[in-house]
Amino acid sequence: MTQATPRTLTAEALGTAFLLATVVGSGIMAERLAGGNVAIALLGNTIPTGAILYVLITLFGPISGAHFNPAVTFGFFLRREIGARAAIAYVAMQIIGGVLGVWAAHLMFELPVLQASETVRTGPAQWFAEIVAAFGLMFAILATLRAKPDAVAMVVGLYITAAYWFTASTSFANPAVTIARGFSNTFAGIRPVDVPAFVIAQLVGAALAVALARWLLAEDRS
Amino acid sequence: MTQATPRTLTAEALGTAFLLATVVGSGIMAERLAGGNVAIALLGNTIPTGAILYVLITLFGPISGAHFNPAVTFGFFLRREIGARAAIAYVAMQIIGGVLGVWAAHLMFELPVLQASETVRTGPAQWFAEIVAAFGLMFAILATLRAKPDAVAMVVGLYITAAYWFTASTSFANPAVTIARGFSNTFAGIRPVDVPAFVIAQLVGAALAVALARWLLAEDRS
Amino acid sequence: MTQATPRTLTAEALGTAFLLATVVGSGIMAERLAGGNVAIALLGNTIPTGAILYVLITLFGPISGAHFNPAVTFGFFLRREIGARAAIAYVAMQIIGGVLGVWAAHLMFELPVLQASETVRTGPAQWFAEIVAAFGLMFAILATLRAKPDAVAMVVGLYITAAYWFTASTSFANPAVTIARGFSNTFAGIRPVDVPAFVIAQLVGAALAVALARWLLAEDRS
Amino acid sequence: MTQATPRTLTAEALGTAFLLATVVGSGIMAERLAGGNVAIALLGNTIPTGAILYVLITLFGPISGAHFNPAVTFGFFLRREIGARAAIAYVAMQIIGGVLGVWAAHLMFELPVLQASETVRTGPAQWFAEIVAAFGLMFAILATLRAKPDAVAMVVGLYITAAYWFTASTSFANPAVTIARGFSNTFAGIRPVDVPAFVIAQLVGAALAVALARWLLAEDRS
Repeated sequence: MTQATPRTLTAEALGTAFLLATVVGSGIMAERLAGGNVAIALLGNTIPTGAILYVLITLFGPISGAHFNPAVTFGFFLRREIGARAAIAYVAMQIIGGVLGVWAAHLMFELPVLQASETVRTGPAQWFAEIVAAFGLMFAILATLRAKPDAVAMVVGLYITAAYWFTASTSFANPAVTIARGFSNTFAGIRPVDVPAFVIAQLVGAALAVALARWLLAEDRS
Repeated sequence: MTQATPRTLTAEALGTAFLLATVVGSGIMAERLAGGNVAIALLGNTIPTGAILYVLITLFGPISGAHFNPAVTFGFFLRREIGARAAIAYVAMQIIGGVLGVWAAHLMFELPVLQASETVRTGPAQWFAEIVAAFGLMFAILATLRAKPDAVAMVVGLYITAAYWFTASTSFANPAVTIARGFSNTFAGIRPVDVPAFVIAQLVGAALAVALARWLLAEDRS
Repeated sequence: MTQATPRTLTAEALGTAFLLATVVGSGIMAERLAGGNVAIALLGNTIPTGAILYVLITLFGPISGAHFNPAVTFGFFLRREIGARAAIAYVAMQIIGGVLGVWAAHLMFELPVLQASETVRTGPAQWFAEIVAAFGLMFAILATLRAKPDAVAMVVGLYITAAYWFTASTSFANPAVTIARGFSNTFAGIRPVDVPAFVIAQLVGAALAVALARWLLAEDRS
Repeated sequence: MTQATPRTLTAEALGTAFLLATVVGSGIMAERLAGGNVAIALLGNTIPTGAILYVLITLFGPISGAHFNPAVTFGFFLRREIGARAAIAYVAMQIIGGVLGVWAAHLMFELPVLQASETVRTGPAQWFAEIVAAFGLMFAILATLRAKPDAVAMVVGLYITAAYWFTASTSFANPAVTIARGFSNTFAGIRPVDVPAFVIAQLVGAALAVALARWLLAEDRS
């Protein structure tokens, strides 16, 4: 049973902060340098994001479980592996950490700290993409935890590497990431008004994965 | 002995669907963003494909063996590790899953769901490339299963990463992938009329690998 | 307790030399070939750097601990895992090895061996970035050593892969690397006058990581 | 003691053939698609080469030791881990396999099978680079075999990934590769007249690594 303690909550905030600093920071760097070629910019955004996920999950997994993602915490709550109070504390720290990470990226790149994104990301195709992306992420975590727990960091890093490209939304797949990216009018941003639908889609995806895992991973037998 | 059960068949269909959603989805994304530089587009297609293969084989390997590929299933059939009925069921689910994955990619990118490719991929050089690619894939799987089974996911992911570039055909090496890509008139497509020759070449390559493995892996001794 | 012996000091010098030859050499190669697209050049600088870090730490870790970085040695000194004399010898060899590595890169690319960089890298945003980068690096090393020591080489390689892109300074995070890059007026260079502030920021980052690790990794209990 | 048997010799020839098919094939593909941006072409050549090395060493390591490289075989001969006759047989098969791999690449890309390269690669800087590259490769293999044998495939794959960029010669580091690339007037080619000096430099590098390893890896004690 995952517990909310000062150490686990710090791990969630710090990990999510580094994740967002990487997503937003590498997006700024990549866009600045790519000379208008968006595929090159997305490569320069994808490779660091996948890499830092491997790092952060390896570091913080043994401390907090390394959720960094309210949809994942929600999935574990549905599975009764985390209680309601601890889940709320986790999610709060993920969102706070994520926003601080975005602000750190702005500071490092000499941009105004407080921003709101103007990038439109909406419509049924993008929502469907977010359901698929979050479903795949949650299912990948559950299946790997069961079959080969040592591989979770690599699986999540490479899953997001792929999902940046196979979803039209570049796979946010994470409500804390989505909210935090609303605070950045840069390459990785999303208009705040578009955030709620993304979050709902991500929670739906995670819930579907929990349901499928119960059957497909034969967990109903044990 | 690999069995066809609701769980293993679902795993084959779901895994092949995610594989094709990645191959076709990342192809669409990469081509849209690459500004006409096809090498950049192919990088944006290669990296996600290699990454998702590692993920899918890690997840589904313990459930169904993670074939996702009729040529691989055919190879295991030749080795009598799967029976004829189970093999046919596997192949059917791989093809159905693959086509559904392509359609999911089209939905995510707001393209017409039903398409037929117009990309010509034919001729002896491409067929030879497909024999080489499928031979290498099947041999890599058999040798790794024997020497270091934990490494199969990484070996297959990196083999396809390389094969996308060292074969003139970008290494389909998989009849389900080939058939499914016939349904997409995008970066990763192949004209339906060109599919059968590719499939035959892939089955030939897999059969050659099974024959070589029997001798080179010293399996005739055990 | 880490010792300074001929073998460990040679390992530190040789490892840091190969690290710098890669950082500077791949920077020269990437800039020459990239046709002015700096994002492509940075990809061609990032991927080799991350790769060689995995290699060097795997090779030299069992011999010297594979610091290659005075900030890391300083961190272990604060933790009393290396004495003052050994630490000074380590740092000296890292700096000497780093400069020799830069010169080797110049020789391989037919450039004048002795150079001084003219690339301006200064200002509070870059110093903040260096604190963040060195903090993350030192914390990643400490947490991984505690939780999964076998993964240190992969963690450091992928951390630097990410940090090249998420920091505006492209994450030097290493005083020996910073000093040595002062000797190269190429892609990876830094003006010598800008070196001291970078080094101070890196030491501050490493010290902060040591302090956090003491609490977050629950080391004060044991 | 490494033995020359039909199985080990086949493994050396087949592995070197796949290595060269990848080096030359991905070079052709990358150059065709890169639209003149050589850095992108080199990325498209580097990533497949590093990937296939991991694959081939994982597959063939348990069979033949996966040398694929006369300089490596020469290094093991100096260490008396392979006899003179077996070493000569290994080298012959590596060269034959390498040339067949180049021809297979030409066939797959519909190029004339028989070619001779016209790419000039000569001069002290390039020879120095080849000494460095082969020294690093041989030392990396010896140190990893001693400290963490399971990691050899990953170490070699990532070492060559880095070395393609940190050496002005793009790191051939392998006489069989050098000779075989003399037979291809494509991206990866080298003028036959420039081959001998490269081969000598590579053997010198390997010998230096054997000498250093004897002392640095403390092998003289055991």
